[in-house]
Parts: sequence; C-alpha cells; structure tokens
Amino acid sequence: MTPVAQVIDGRRIADDILAELAGDVAALKQSGVTPSLSVVLVGENPASQIYVRMKTRKASELGLKSDTVTLPQNTSQEMLLQVIERLNRDKSVHAILVQLPLPPRIAESEIINAIDPDKDVDGFHPRNRGLLIAAEDTFVPCTPLGVQELLVRSGFEPAGKHVVIVGRSLIVGKPLALILAQKGRGGNATVTLCHTGTQDLASFTRQADILIAAAGQPEMIRGNMLKADAVVIDVGVNRISDPNSEKGYRLVGDVDFESAKKRVQAITPVPGGVGPMTIAMLMHNTVKAARNQMRQ
Amino acid sequence: MTPVAQVIDGRRIADDILAELAGDVAALKQSGVTPSLSVVLVGENPASQIYVRMKTRKASELGLKSDTVTLPQNTSQEMLLQVIERLNRDKSVHAILVQLPLPPRIAESEIINAIDPDKDVDGFHPRNRGLLIAAEDTFVPCTPLGVQELLVRSGFEPAGKHVVIVGRSLIVGKPLALILAQKGRGGNATVTLCHTGTQDLASFTRQADILIAAAGQPEMIRGNMLKADAVVIDVGVNRISDPNSEKGYRLVGDVDFESAKKRVQAITPVPGGVGPMTIAMLMHNTVKAARNQMRQ
Repeated sequence: MTPVAQVIDGRRIADDILAELAGDVAALKQSGVTPSLSVVLVGENPASQIYVRMKTRKASELGLKSDTVTLPQNTSQEMLLQVIERLNRDKSVHAILVQLPLPPRIAESEIINAIDPDKDVDGFHPRNRGLLIAAEDTFVPCTPLGVQELLVRSGFEPAGKHVVIVGRSLIVGKPLALILAQKGRGGNATVTLCHTGTQDLASFTRQADILIAAAGQPEMIRGNMLKADAVVIDVGVNRISDPNSEKGYRLVGDVDFESAKKRVQAITPVPGGVGPMTIAMLMHNTVKAARNQMRQ
Repeated sequence: MTPVAQVIDGRRIADDILAELAGDVAALKQSGVTPSLSVVLVGENPASQIYVRMKTRKASELGLKSDTVTLPQNTSQEMLLQVIERLNRDKSVHAILVQLPLPPRIAESEIINAIDPDKDVDGFHPRNRGLLIAAEDTFVPCTPLGVQELLVRSGFEPAGKHVVIVGRSLIVGKPLALILAQKGRGGNATVTLCHTGTQDLASFTRQADILIAAAGQPEMIRGNMLKADAVVIDVGVNRISDPNSEKGYRLVGDVDFESAKKRVQAITPVPGGVGPMTIAMLMHNTVKAARNQMRQ
C-alpha cells in the first residue's frame, strides 16, 4: 500500500486564527477602537485587484474598518506619496498596505520607506525589517509569519528540525530563514537557504525535515527530491495553462503535488494552504497595529 | 605525508585593503575632507579598552581623524544619548561607533537607535539592518563584511559553495548568512545556519565547503567535524587559561586549530585571521560615510 501524505488544511487553521482575533477585535471595540486597514491599489493589474478584494473582504468579515484607495495606472510617485502622507496622519487609520507591484515608473522602496513604520502591516519598512533581524517586536511579513503559524498549529514544530527553504526573496525566503532560525516559539530550526545559485539542489531538499518551496517555479520540487517523512510547505502560486479548465488555466504550487504526496508525511495544497494564512496574518498585524496605537 | 592546510593571513589581506583605502583618503583630503571617526567608550572594561585603542590607532595610521569620548561606568542613559546627539549634529564627525557592551543599566537598543544611520559605521541601526536584508546600499557590519572580503581575496569565492555558519548572533551569524546568500560579489552561496538548537551539528559541519565558526565556544569545532577540502574561517576569540603563558591565558578560536589544519584545505588563525579584517572594514565604512556625507 502506498502511503499518502496528510494534507494540511490552511483554510481551517486560518479560520481558527480569525476566530481568536474576533475576540481581540470585540475587546478593542469595547474600548472604543475599531481596527482600521487602508489598502492602496494603483492601476488595474487583475491579480492585484483580486488580492486586494480578498484582503478587504476578510477584514470586513472580521468586523474591521477597511477601505481601498484606488488610483489610476498613471499616478505619479509624488501623488502616491501624498496619499501615504495623508494616511500616515489620519489617526483613524491604524494599518496601511500598498499592494505591490507598483507601476514601473514608481520607485517601490521610496513608497515603502514613506509608510509610517507603526502602520506598516506588511513589515516591509527598513526599520521593521531591521527589528526582524534583531528578533525585536515588529510586524513580521504576513507570508513568513503564516508559514511559521501553519507549522506550529499543524503540530510540526520547527525546533531542532532541518528546514530547507528554496527561494531567497525579500518577501518570503530571507525573512522566513531568520524567524525559523531564531530562538522562541516556532523557531530554533537549523535552516538552509537554497536558490538559483545552489548546485545540486536535490542533495539539499532530500535532507529537509521541513521543505519550504518559495521559488516561483511551477512544480519544480518533485517527489523524488524529498525525504519520506518530510513536511512540505508550498508557498508558490503559479498559473499554468489548462485547456480543460473553464478559465484556460489552473493554479499550481512550486511542488509537484501528486508525486510529493505519495512520498512525504504532510503537505500543503495550492490553493488552500499558505494563501489563507497570509491573509489571516494581515488581520493579525492590523489588530496589533490598532492595539499598539491605542497605547501610545 | 599528512597534508597541512594553507593558513590564510588576515593581517596581510587587511593591509592590502588599508593600502587601497589610503588612496581614497588622499583623494578625499584633496577635496578638503578628512574622514573622521568618533568612538564612544563607557566604563573600564579592559577588553573594550584594547579594542577601542586598536581601532583609533589604525584610523590614525590611515590618516583619518579619530577621537575617543571616554565616559565613566556610572554614565546615565540620558547622558549617553546627549553625547550621541552632539556627535550626530557635528558635521565634522562622519562616523560614530559606540563600543559594546554597555553597562547593564543602559538599554543598548535605545543608544543604537539614536545614532544617525548615515554615521552608523557598525551597521547596527535598524534602518541599516533592514537595508542589509533588502540587499540595498548600507553599512554592512564590519565582521561579516570582513569574512566575506577574506574569502574573496584569498581566492575562495562563496558562489555555488555550501557555507555552514555555526552561531546565529546578531553581530555575525545572521548578517553573514544574508550577505553570503544574496546575489552579487562574494555572495550566491547556499547557506546553512547552525546554532545551539541544532541537532547532530557534525552532520552539518562535515558538509561545509566553507565552514564559518562564530559560536563563541573555545575550540568546539574539531578536525573530525570537517571535510578534507574545507575552507575554515574562525571568527571566535576566546581566552583560555594557560599557566605557561606570561599573561596566564592565551587566545583561541572556536576551531581546534591543530586538528583542523591537518585535515582541511585552508584555515584562518586566531589571532591574525578575522580580527584585522574587522578593523579594516571599520576603516572602509568610515571612508564610505565621509564620501556619502560629502555628496549630501
């Protein structure tokens, strides 16, 4: 009999987190504070529009105040900075998220650096990234935080394990390596960071007690690159064409799900794995921002 | 015949770097700018006094302006912050270094956060740490930068190699993992970060093409934990008692030099390996700070 992996249900775990957050939100409202998230969307990238809708809808479901500032594709950097400045000054806005990518004319780092670090729920401001390295209190970026929570809550504590991360992005791979290696809840793992410069990738992935795929390459990690008892977290979201699908495409991860699930101990699906966790962590960070600003 | 490792001469490589910097300093002086480093030393920790003297002496040899602000052990946090403020405002000071550790009454992070990031040549300010993760231009902390330079200049390019770092400190292990894994000169390595939570450490160190010991544990890495063709960089500086020595102690690294050098391809000595490189990189960062501030 071929063993089949446990499929880790990211939606269920995200729902658990949102249910806990609902209690925090109720308490804040009793103190007269409704946590509030402002999302800034520039242009008409269809994927960005979907992501923004998913985020603001989830915020509304949780009883948060949320609004979307929609700006045209030809918005100047100066205009966008003015919008950020207004949101920074607005005491009724606790959390600001600028949906990336921005149009190429706009310097993303200039925009991110302009967000008040106390409202930067994506955790992308240099101050917040610096506090992350130092393991000090900050907004941890939502996807890495979601991966860590997913591991802890599904019973796969990283402590003492060998975690192999494939992908060194600034949004996922690098911050994830830092938070999984540091001391504390969900940390204390031995971490190997692999990337396009890695030679003989399979020799590393085969060592992983926990394999985290965040390379943005559809189905690049196959079952024969994994250890039999590995836990696999797939951060990838890739569209591949599929003439049999109504939309003409389907979503796949960075892991070849079919060959991997015949081999490993547990695996996240795409969609329904890391995605819902990322949004739940955005809600977590928004509630945290509101709580911090109430104390100030 | 037992092969014996090449001993990497950190002093010679540091001298090469200082000779190159001397040219930059001459050019800056011709433009009317003498790069200037202010070191702040609180209390009478003998090791700190030695380090500060080594840094300011090297600065003088290089033709920089350097001075040391010496404050008593009972200095208050408030007083120290006032000193930092004064140095921040002083346009003739390009670089500020507060020698750590500070007396326990003083919150180190408050002091580091108060240093003007443009003068923070240790690279410890959260903004500079955040820019480091993002691989943007910043002051890279001196010891990690020194290790990277040492590897490149001794012909052991990290690109494509498996680098195993033992020790996850904020000063060495974590920033080093980031700069060795990122794209660019001296980077592009596959990096594994090990620490006190790592199980079966030897199973990782034996895989290292490049082993970097930065754990602060005297002679913990022994020859039988290393691959035959490994390159070993020893960041450790530990005093161990030695009744045969005049001072009653001697300095050893985190690597057992005698057993390691019989086995590996190349190894740095302690002292004379990473130490001189750290000071050379402080000079590098000071010259860079002066150049940046001239442009402003």
